[in-house]
Amino acid sequence: MPYDYIKSPADIYRKSFALVGEALAGHEIPRPLLPIAKRLVHTCGDPSLVEVLDWSPDFLDAGLKGLATGLFVDVEMVSAGITARFLPTGVKPVCQLNHPDVAGLAQALGTTRSAAAVNLWGAALDGALVVIGNAPTALFHLLEGVEAGNLARPAAMVAMPVGFVGAAESKEAVAASDIPYIAVHGTRGGSALAASVVNALALMARNESQE
Amino acid sequence: MPYDYIKSPADIYRKSFALVGEALAGHEIPRPLLPIAKRLVHTCGDPSLVEVLDWSPDFLDAGLKGLATGLFVDVEMVSAGITARFLPTGVKPVCQLNHPDVAGLAQALGTTRSAAAVNLWGAALDGALVVIGNAPTALFHLLEGVEAGNLARPAAMVAMPVGFVGAAESKEAVAASDIPYIAVHGTRGGSALAASVVNALALMARNESQE
Repeated sequence: MPYDYIKSPADIYRKSFALVGEALAGHEIPRPLLPIAKRLVHTCGDPSLVEVLDWSPDFLDAGLKGLATGLFVDVEMVSAGITARFLPTGVKPVCQLNHPDVAGLAQALGTTRSAAAVNLWGAALDGALVVIGNAPTALFHLLEGVEAGNLARPAAMVAMPVGFVGAAESKEAVAASDIPYIAVHGTRGGSALAASVVNALALMARNESQE
Repeated sequence: MPYDYIKSPADIYRKSFALVGEALAGHEIPRPLLPIAKRLVHTCGDPSLVEVLDWSPDFLDAGLKGLATGLFVDVEMVSAGITARFLPTGVKPVCQLNHPDVAGLAQALGTTRSAAAVNLWGAALDGALVVIGNAPTALFHLLEGVEAGNLARPAAMVAMPVGFVGAAESKEAVAASDIPYIAVHGTRGGSALAASVVNALALMARNESQE
């Protein structure tokens, strides 16, 4: 039997963001950050996510500047979630997790491959946007490296590692750092959420909002 | 300053699944499905997800059989979330969303690209596993095609489209169909969750559980 459902992509998109907007009506989200909050909820289907959403006052400006400079992500699934055609010209997500040197480097450093891959971001990390959607160890390693002066300083961080081992603590460490950030606190997070923040920022940079 | 966190990948993995197991202790999940439930929660960091997890009694057998036959996914992000080395020899996720014929076909059918891409799965869909992590329209289109005899019949479905327009309804339609399924009801879902079910099934097929 045929089902009764909306088939027009434009109608789906419009109705979806309208319903997300309604779902967020009771939440106090600063207007400039609303497109990001909406896209996060659009991605996971869970309006309660905004209750643990947190950002530094300087995140939006710093994040937009960072995105125009460069984009570093912890896992390929974040890259897969980023809509390439939204990005500023010449900007492509860089993921070094599968670089041939990473396994050996991780072993030498006594840490995860995700953390070791951060070391391969190099000088281009300076002033760029960092997006962590999976590994708390990558986030801790980045903070340690920046604080110790061993790694270049990113403009801003999207901090959305997920899980029960270190994720919550790594996001608290980000919030206590002096790098501009947006984070989903607690155990929730993930690549799709992290990527959705990049998509929202990229649309804002083009003055195309999903609102 | 250095932070205090677990750096050993093996320790992180072990502790993570132990904590997920504890978080699920109060939930009634049939023992054979526990590895799937655990991996879903491991992926999203949200134990409440299992409250909307639903499956048909024949899902596990049918899903394992389907996975050994072939694997069809709605979006590239599901493919990105599937750990290729876990999969049975010769099985690779097939996504037709970016096939050059899809845009024209979608326009001709008056539907989304995600739904049109399902038409390109062809005869290999017969007895395979279908994994929907994004588009309710793909799920509706698949059900309609199978019921009308225009599409081959998959062995089982992982039904985890996300969002506020049609997602909940599409998963109810799956649950009312006679195709074996696992689903996350309501608005929640997503590519990472859908992919995690495939990873859990693939490990079960190899007799390697994450438990």
